[in-house]
Amino acid sequence: MTKQIKKIAVLTSGGDSPGMNAAIRSVVRTCAFMKLECAAIYRGYQGMIDGDFKDMTARSVNNIINKGGTILKSARCEEFRTPEGRQKAYNQLKKHNIDAFVVIGGNGSFAGGLKFNEEFNFPVMGIPGTIDNDILGTSYTIGFDTAINTVVEVIDKIRDTASSHNRLFFVEVMGRDVGHIALNAGVGAGAEEILIPEQNLGLERLLESLKRSKKSGKSSSIVIVAEGDKTGKNVFELKDYVEEHLPIYDVRVSVLGHMQRGGSPTCFDRVLASRMGVKAVEALMAGKSNYMVGIRDNNLILTPISEAIKAHTPVDEELVRVSDIMTT
Amino acid sequence: MTKQIKKIAVLTSGGDSPGMNAAIRSVVRTCAFMKLECAAIYRGYQGMIDGDFKDMTARSVNNIINKGGTILKSARCEEFRTPEGRQKAYNQLKKHNIDAFVVIGGNGSFAGGLKFNEEFNFPVMGIPGTIDNDILGTSYTIGFDTAINTVVEVIDKIRDTASSHNRLFFVEVMGRDVGHIALNAGVGAGAEEILIPEQNLGLERLLESLKRSKKSGKSSSIVIVAEGDKTGKNVFELKDYVEEHLPIYDVRVSVLGHMQRGGSPTCFDRVLASRMGVKAVEALMAGKSNYMVGIRDNNLILTPISEAIKAHTPVDEELVRVSDIMTT
Amino acid sequence: MTKQIKKIAVLTSGGDSPGMNAAIRSVVRTCAFMKLECAAIYRGYQGMIDGDFKDMTARSVNNIINKGGTILKSARCEEFRTPEGRQKAYNQLKKHNIDAFVVIGGNGSFAGGLKFNEEFNFPVMGIPGTIDNDILGTSYTIGFDTAINTVVEVIDKIRDTASSHNRLFFVEVMGRDVGHIALNAGVGAGAEEILIPEQNLGLERLLESLKRSKKSGKSSSIVIVAEGDKTGKNVFELKDYVEEHLPIYDVRVSVLGHMQRGGSPTCFDRVLASRMGVKAVEALMAGKSNYMVGIRDNNLILTPISEAIKAHTPVDEELVRVSDIMTT
Amino acid sequence: MTKQIKKIAVLTSGGDSPGMNAAIRSVVRTCAFMKLECAAIYRGYQGMIDGDFKDMTARSVNNIINKGGTILKSARCEEFRTPEGRQKAYNQLKKHNIDAFVVIGGNGSFAGGLKFNEEFNFPVMGIPGTIDNDILGTSYTIGFDTAINTVVEVIDKIRDTASSHNRLFFVEVMGRDVGHIALNAGVGAGAEEILIPEQNLGLERLLESLKRSKKSGKSSSIVIVAEGDKTGKNVFELKDYVEEHLPIYDVRVSVLGHMQRGGSPTCFDRVLASRMGVKAVEALMAGKSNYMVGIRDNNLILTPISEAIKAHTPVDEELVRVSDIMTT
Repeated sequence: MTKQIKKIAVLTSGGDSPGMNAAIRSVVRTCAFMKLECAAIYRGYQGMIDGDFKDMTARSVNNIINKGGTILKSARCEEFRTPEGRQKAYNQLKKHNIDAFVVIGGNGSFAGGLKFNEEFNFPVMGIPGTIDNDILGTSYTIGFDTAINTVVEVIDKIRDTASSHNRLFFVEVMGRDVGHIALNAGVGAGAEEILIPEQNLGLERLLESLKRSKKSGKSSSIVIVAEGDKTGKNVFELKDYVEEHLPIYDVRVSVLGHMQRGGSPTCFDRVLASRMGVKAVEALMAGKSNYMVGIRDNNLILTPISEAIKAHTPVDEELVRVSDIMTT
Repeated sequence: MTKQIKKIAVLTSGGDSPGMNAAIRSVVRTCAFMKLECAAIYRGYQGMIDGDFKDMTARSVNNIINKGGTILKSARCEEFRTPEGRQKAYNQLKKHNIDAFVVIGGNGSFAGGLKFNEEFNFPVMGIPGTIDNDILGTSYTIGFDTAINTVVEVIDKIRDTASSHNRLFFVEVMGRDVGHIALNAGVGAGAEEILIPEQNLGLERLLESLKRSKKSGKSSSIVIVAEGDKTGKNVFELKDYVEEHLPIYDVRVSVLGHMQRGGSPTCFDRVLASRMGVKAVEALMAGKSNYMVGIRDNNLILTPISEAIKAHTPVDEELVRVSDIMTT
Repeated sequence: MTKQIKKIAVLTSGGDSPGMNAAIRSVVRTCAFMKLECAAIYRGYQGMIDGDFKDMTARSVNNIINKGGTILKSARCEEFRTPEGRQKAYNQLKKHNIDAFVVIGGNGSFAGGLKFNEEFNFPVMGIPGTIDNDILGTSYTIGFDTAINTVVEVIDKIRDTASSHNRLFFVEVMGRDVGHIALNAGVGAGAEEILIPEQNLGLERLLESLKRSKKSGKSSSIVIVAEGDKTGKNVFELKDYVEEHLPIYDVRVSVLGHMQRGGSPTCFDRVLASRMGVKAVEALMAGKSNYMVGIRDNNLILTPISEAIKAHTPVDEELVRVSDIMTT
Repeated sequence: MTKQIKKIAVLTSGGDSPGMNAAIRSVVRTCAFMKLECAAIYRGYQGMIDGDFKDMTARSVNNIINKGGTILKSARCEEFRTPEGRQKAYNQLKKHNIDAFVVIGGNGSFAGGLKFNEEFNFPVMGIPGTIDNDILGTSYTIGFDTAINTVVEVIDKIRDTASSHNRLFFVEVMGRDVGHIALNAGVGAGAEEILIPEQNLGLERLLESLKRSKKSGKSSSIVIVAEGDKTGKNVFELKDYVEEHLPIYDVRVSVLGHMQRGGSPTCFDRVLASRMGVKAVEALMAGKSNYMVGIRDNNLILTPISEAIKAHTPVDEELVRVSDIMTT
């Protein structure tokens, strides 16, 4: 019934994350292994619309597994949100004899793929690539493990200078509306307090906690603040607030920013990406479409994209509890 | 029925692994959080026999979460294998008012704890700390993630010089009788071939694979060899064998050795260790004994030590397949 | 004439820098080697005033050579600027039988030591510890090499995401009134433009340069901005200015902040600190005072503190020229 | 008199070192800046003989400054040692309109260039690229700083496991006939003993030193052994010797090997390489030939190749003394 798939395209879309290149490599090499043709699409859906395609062989992806970012570039694309844009994209795919595509990205990219599939009945498979780890249907997204290690390494450095001067640091980390990076990196870095969007403990509690920490004899304190935190204050306002209400502290601020998106991926992210790439191609060849590849307890699974984009993964309540105990 | 637990001891035993300090910190702080007393035992079971104990408070474990090795030192201990040794250990525990202990280590350490429990009905809880990831009852042991990242970072460096000179490298990694480190780090580093104890593909296949790799246009090749590999040749003999039978290659050897046991733990290992420490103390307080804490799909679980030490975790067959596809 | 020196104190003062611990270790061990007593003073001049002293042996400084920050803590101290404060400090030194001290820090710390010496004729030796590399009388200060590597590693990560999205980044680095960190890290990171306090090229030139860079086919651009830059705009205002006048760029900002002060020191900084510590003690024992230890072409030299604090080291004009050529 | 230089070639030769790519980039971009043509020669002198040339523009060297190894590949070349080989090389240079070349490498590569110049009066300029830092006429060779940092980072890891088990490690590092890597990395890593080719202290002294170290209360010991060490025993034989004569130690061996040649270069090596590339091209344009670019106290200098290849740089006696004091 469905057309036999002979050529698969791969693209990266939305914000980049470390490990995307490993996923691209995996899709390309799995195609080569299965004697399928493979094309890369540059600059996400914008490149799909513009016809920015390139045929790939197993050798095209040599020596990229250890590279951050995405060799295919990425972009957000307004035009793909319009029927006209998607029609152009479809025309380009047909022109280049593409029978299916794998999109590596986050929720927005998957939603675009789903819409496209509904209109053109075109096979689409998603691989979750984002540092935020906020996608339902997988325990880990590609890039998350690298990002939390980057944050922890930086906070280890900040800790050196913080404890040399008995200072309090507010460190803002990424994560958009979810606190996964803040919570995991905060526990990993031994932060004294972690402020995440999912939990608004109030500023009173923060002051109490900092007082207790100082009293307990700690020489320095690190407070991790997720960018989407709901205290109503940004990280600079938090500094002012604490300095006013708790003048025992010399306070500093550090906003980690985009370095969290880059860097050579960790082994975990490279392996995860390699496995997901294989699964994505195999699922397409098995006639599946509109799924996202995920991982649960070391097993690869498929989740309908329609399910995956419904909500963000909640934070792990047990880890929140561990975090509280560790700051004793 | 069972005596109320008021004081818990923690020790590290066997080979050290990165993240052991984070686990020690977690046990100590969980005790503090639960208003329990806590003691550290130095040098594993040997220190238990010798009475090398020290009382710990939450502040005793400041600034150790990021440190490799174990601040409690570790050792293998022959004396603990004898009834006399274990009797001495018991006497010391009683003398220091210890009601239960948490042992962080591998199979041998757990077996010792189990034996001890059988003789003295003394509550024992295990936390899996080893870089080998070979323990049944947990998807991850503490230290494995750090070790595979260390290996991948080193191989990334070796790749630089290998491809500058079009060389073939045999890189020996740790893992004792199991291939987990070799397989994961090999996939992560993009190795051309991975030799693990669980699979003896024969030297013929190795030559075939190397020939194919050269022919496909690859400029360099990395072959990962697990230390327990079953080809019947060590890594230096492999070099000689390949140079004799496949003179197209300029071959070099690198034995990574003990650097794989050290280094600041990754965020993953720090978080895992923090969670396992909490679980271990809570399980003891819930009246459980002779269990090992493990993790499955991000949930902490308990496995009877008697089960955990029965066998090694087998390698992931699906990852072996991914590895084959990636070397296309 | 001068009193025989039998006991030397060491302190760190002002902003901390990576390698200070290696310098402390070196002073302590050189004293031990020369059969001198040695005391540590905590929290800089404030600890000197407060009598926060601790006797040190060669073993007191085990395993600190690789640690960032300073185990002696550091602080800026207003009280030491007053005659009363310095009198208290002198009384404490006498009380603890200290015959001379080595101060590890920057210009302000040296000026304090010089003033103290003038009043009490007390032997003082300086070791330059600051990430800014702005001290006359030495080619390198302790911590500079580590800081520029930290900056380059972070910019390598930012480059990954910048080139994935064809973005322009303004990256603010430390350095107070001097551009050494910006210039060296900028050349090392392959920055497209470097804005330093010593050179105000004007905003027009920046726009020209960015236009040329875009036209030449570069997919991303990194502009390094020293914190003391004299364009009259901070890094966020620069972003707004460029977005307004050069709308071809998607611009982002990253302020690296205090992470630049921390981290395990590089081999260069560890060796430099080890050498300077030996020289400082030997100079004191040779009857010298009021000097700062420096390095010129791999030879240790002494410069009168009065000379060292006169001005900042100018930037290397030849390196500015190299930087211009590299951005071709 | 001499022909006007319009096109310059660049090659890497001999063992690779981190920072070679930064030097290639600098030569290429300096040519572009000076409106000269530039060609790359692949695989060193072998590629010169084979005519493996490629024209380069400023954009050809984008994003390579941070990469280890050499994008031009390197090789040792027997054929270039023969008059016939050199004649072929000359013919290829003429055929490709090359007027001068810059060779990045070590002594052997420079000697080849000198010989070539003598026969064909062809302008040659050398840039010292080797991790060994053994070349007269420069305080630093490109790659040395990266290599000593790699060694120190690895030994920091080994130290973790060594002190967890109270072990003694013999760590073999590179350096061929000279002890620069061993001495600098040994001081940087806080090694208890450093064995270098320049100093044969005898095995007796080693045993004395290890005994003293144990007695002083040190929990672990690291002995660095340069590969060219003159004790008459290799690192495995040293282990056996110490275990036999000093059974108080549990001894392990680690041979670091080729990882020391790879890795992303440090900021120091990138800046050094950038500066040397500019100087090399400028010297050629100023009519100079048969010189090697070097650095002395932050100033770039030229040394006749005939001088540079006469001997190895001796180790710094003052640093040997510092090393002795530090192991107090």
